[in-house]
Amino acid sequence: MLKEAIYHRPKNNWSYAYDRRNIHIRIRTKRGDVERVDLLHGDKYNWHVIGHETTAMRVFAQDALFDYWQAEVQPQYRRLKYGFLLQAGKEKLWLNEQGFHEKEPNHNLYFEFPFLNPADVFQPSAWVKDAVFYQIFPERFANGDRSNDPEGVEPWGGEPEPFNYFGGDLQGVIDHLDHLERLGVNAIYFNPLFAARTNHKYDTEDYLKVDAHFGTNETLKELVKECHSRGIRVLLDAVFNHSGRTFAPFVDVLEKGADSKYADWFHVREFPLEVRDGIPTYDAFAFEKHMPKLNTENEDVQKYLLEVARYWIEEVDVDGWRLDVANEVDHRFWRKFREVVKAAKPEAYILGEIWHDSLPWLGGDQFDAVMNYPLTEAILDYAVRGTRDGRQFADLAGYLLAAYPQQATEAAFNLLGSHDTPRLLTLSQGDKRKVRLGSVIQFTMAGTPCIYYGDEIGMDGGQDPGCRKCMVWEEDKQDAELFAFFAELVRLRKAHRALRDGSFEMLSSEEGRSAIAYLREADGERFIVALNAGKRKASLAVALPEAAAPEVVFGEGTAELRGRKLHVALPPLGYAIVRVL
Amino acid sequence: MLKEAIYHRPKNNWSYAYDRRNIHIRIRTKRGDVERVDLLHGDKYNWHVIGHETTAMRVFAQDALFDYWQAEVQPQYRRLKYGFLLQAGKEKLWLNEQGFHEKEPNHNLYFEFPFLNPADVFQPSAWVKDAVFYQIFPERFANGDRSNDPEGVEPWGGEPEPFNYFGGDLQGVIDHLDHLERLGVNAIYFNPLFAARTNHKYDTEDYLKVDAHFGTNETLKELVKECHSRGIRVLLDAVFNHSGRTFAPFVDVLEKGADSKYADWFHVREFPLEVRDGIPTYDAFAFEKHMPKLNTENEDVQKYLLEVARYWIEEVDVDGWRLDVANEVDHRFWRKFREVVKAAKPEAYILGEIWHDSLPWLGGDQFDAVMNYPLTEAILDYAVRGTRDGRQFADLAGYLLAAYPQQATEAAFNLLGSHDTPRLLTLSQGDKRKVRLGSVIQFTMAGTPCIYYGDEIGMDGGQDPGCRKCMVWEEDKQDAELFAFFAELVRLRKAHRALRDGSFEMLSSEEGRSAIAYLREADGERFIVALNAGKRKASLAVALPEAAAPEVVFGEGTAELRGRKLHVALPPLGYAIVRVL
Repeated sequence: MLKEAIYHRPKNNWSYAYDRRNIHIRIRTKRGDVERVDLLHGDKYNWHVIGHETTAMRVFAQDALFDYWQAEVQPQYRRLKYGFLLQAGKEKLWLNEQGFHEKEPNHNLYFEFPFLNPADVFQPSAWVKDAVFYQIFPERFANGDRSNDPEGVEPWGGEPEPFNYFGGDLQGVIDHLDHLERLGVNAIYFNPLFAARTNHKYDTEDYLKVDAHFGTNETLKELVKECHSRGIRVLLDAVFNHSGRTFAPFVDVLEKGADSKYADWFHVREFPLEVRDGIPTYDAFAFEKHMPKLNTENEDVQKYLLEVARYWIEEVDVDGWRLDVANEVDHRFWRKFREVVKAAKPEAYILGEIWHDSLPWLGGDQFDAVMNYPLTEAILDYAVRGTRDGRQFADLAGYLLAAYPQQATEAAFNLLGSHDTPRLLTLSQGDKRKVRLGSVIQFTMAGTPCIYYGDEIGMDGGQDPGCRKCMVWEEDKQDAELFAFFAELVRLRKAHRALRDGSFEMLSSEEGRSAIAYLREADGERFIVALNAGKRKASLAVALPEAAAPEVVFGEGTAELRGRKLHVALPPLGYAIVRVL
Repeated sequence: MLKEAIYHRPKNNWSYAYDRRNIHIRIRTKRGDVERVDLLHGDKYNWHVIGHETTAMRVFAQDALFDYWQAEVQPQYRRLKYGFLLQAGKEKLWLNEQGFHEKEPNHNLYFEFPFLNPADVFQPSAWVKDAVFYQIFPERFANGDRSNDPEGVEPWGGEPEPFNYFGGDLQGVIDHLDHLERLGVNAIYFNPLFAARTNHKYDTEDYLKVDAHFGTNETLKELVKECHSRGIRVLLDAVFNHSGRTFAPFVDVLEKGADSKYADWFHVREFPLEVRDGIPTYDAFAFEKHMPKLNTENEDVQKYLLEVARYWIEEVDVDGWRLDVANEVDHRFWRKFREVVKAAKPEAYILGEIWHDSLPWLGGDQFDAVMNYPLTEAILDYAVRGTRDGRQFADLAGYLLAAYPQQATEAAFNLLGSHDTPRLLTLSQGDKRKVRLGSVIQFTMAGTPCIYYGDEIGMDGGQDPGCRKCMVWEEDKQDAELFAFFAELVRLRKAHRALRDGSFEMLSSEEGRSAIAYLREADGERFIVALNAGKRKASLAVALPEAAAPEVVFGEGTAELRGRKLHVALPPLGYAIVRVL
């Protein structure tokens, strides 16, 4: 057994409380190297009296280099002492906190999960794993009220530019909630709605006021109420990393410099505030002088922003916050933020914008989830760009599965595009088969999928501003077939818990091959999701442990049982969701 | 290069802010496998414009399986994007968040340290690394006031039993502060002082009152004042995991059951409170019915305990808290505790009792340090028990060095014994050479060393209650030679920053050999600490990069320079601290 490959360290994604009763313990070994791993566990205070139990671990994920094993245990007194016994052939290795042993070591130096305190259990909002999100960039979704149009508004459907306006607003969203209902989504993520000077509103001027071009606080209240009556939740965008240039405290500092009572609200390196050689003399989002970074360590700033967080939940009844540039704000602030938000609405969803490894924010004390861009990249590489073969996709998906506690994976925000990326159809170079293939993966993985407005009717567009076109409302210009595809995908996911919240097992993924298949199972239902990212027909065969009657419930392939194997045939860039009894 | 051995993951001990300016980045490779590692780093927002820098990493620690590399960087805008380039022979590997690459990948998927927010910097109390602690078990240190003796007090110096009393008190400590000053220690860690029903006081009855047998709150105030006037800091023991049986809220629950207004102050599994088959119907410390676990998730409990934490700091001016059974209390409580304690006294030391891997408490949001029992075990195995050879000791010491952020190592509480373990002299089977050997290591490592009362004058005693004997005050029964040894060790450590806070490098440690040597360096001073845990004479030779004039400043060995090597000869179980210019 390759000792250097074996890894376990208490907490994080390696040992954590899944809920108030169950503890998950994981360990990593070299892929294919270890035949059996047993978890040896007991209560630290009576191990010497009544001994310990042994629980066989199972490989729940694999990546290019490693097998990841997991066991779930329920310690009677909520305390756990544990070690590992690894076996390959006749070789046996025990692992404790001091390392490897060829004989069973005394239990004193085994690992500990000292106590399962409910306060430390990471419990993301339960509704999230049953949700399907729809992202709306409000300036471009629908113009429902011409009276609040910005000056110089351009005709709906024109070319999006960094600084132009088309008049989208909240009334427009209210007017088109039927569209969302037909699609089947039950949650909206709104890009910023608060008063600001740009079309994207990431430069907040007033955190307590809906932008006048979008409507009023009352309009938003009405919108949320109308959404709730249709079973649709509403998530707002909190831009707390930085404010806009016209945010009153910043204006005050611009004017009064170090004498401003808001001088400590920002990170000023040197007064006066100015830009030298393209670099502001204060910290900003990137080097953007119009987006000064807020000092979230200042108690007044905290008080102000936490009041904002509370206000929109309590006054307008929104269902959570998406946090812009979340990883550049201090953890301490986010911990306070969670306390305030969860006090206001225990089921509120806290979603961080982090494009990278996000474990430090997913310990239960800060966010419920992050925007799952690493999975986005994996899906796009495999299904759209063709730069990752089936095995490479499976490896990255396996790695991600093992990288976080299970509840973080279940609450992840899975997207294939956003206001910050080229649209899926554009990345697919117009090939709608790729759009479907990627989306099928997105909708059959754990986490909550999000459709970027317009993707469902075949809108295209490159990197910002291209991806921020006006929503197409003329029916003859909408791709009805694609819409039907998405609506059916949403329906399937909502109808079958197995597809959204079931166990996951990669059944087939081979180096150099584009076809893969994975199994999802829950409530006695089993689905095999088979995908072919290749340009030729493909077929694959997966062993089915029990007899089964395959039925392609969605897709273009065929599936039949021969002996104990399920054979699936797929067209180029085709998919099949196969129910097996 | 063995890919399976290579490990890096952002945060924790792998990438962290050492202070408000410096970020430490670490990576692990198979021992001896990789020749060079470069950190490629830049600002995420202008990498594409001005490119990145390259910083060579150095191996700062090794254990049985791995080399640990570190680089320290100061990102100008406090944001860091980074990747690794590893080289061995002609082989080159780049590592980013997606894994290994044989060609330089695009920087987009490199790792991130998104922003160095001061609020998240882990800054333990600065004085700790310059301190030498002395642990006092108050019932057994000195009886300075016969008027407060417990009923049935036994004559000083009798056999310690689980439930007997000898009358030690705070006046006794005040009376003997000269002893501490002669020894040179500048901090006291007191076992619990608050009202309780046992001799150890870990069963608190009243958290706001000094135990009547120890004195009054006024006596403690006087003691702290007297200590401070002598430059000695005072650390109290906070037993917040559980209360005692006679704690008023618990008495109320015992009496009124579920109707008590304190019913939620504890973790009751089933009313009434009773013991069935040796197991209380409520959670307790271990299964000890007299020590009911406090529900630190209850807001009233929090309020009460946080007030306790604040009270003794603000009213009595104590310098910090040692936290009993710290790992069984929820992290959320400890985060609040830290806010309260640091608000009351920013330099207060927060020391957790955790015997195991403690990384989850050492992120800057909870403790400053833990009782470093893993190092205790390493030192005892090597210097006292002889169960770990030089290489094995070096490996474990290296592992521990890499296991935490550097500031955690610097603030670690290094002990060789306590009220919970057999005494060092007893573990050494009376061999004072072993006591000295172990102590020399303890005093020349990063972290703050602690002497358990009486060890310095040659007291012995096995596991509790044996280790809790009455302090010996008759001079003719004290080992004056040992006292002189400890006093000199303390003096040396205090006189030379290199020994307490210098860089550390293991110079010599071989499999099967008992002699080791390591280098500590700071302020232009270099010391080589050479140790021989074997029963025979030993000598070792270490390369000295620059010419040096060796001087044995402490110890029984000899040291001489031959060419570019320092040769040290050591008697059995001997040591030498050698200053090299």
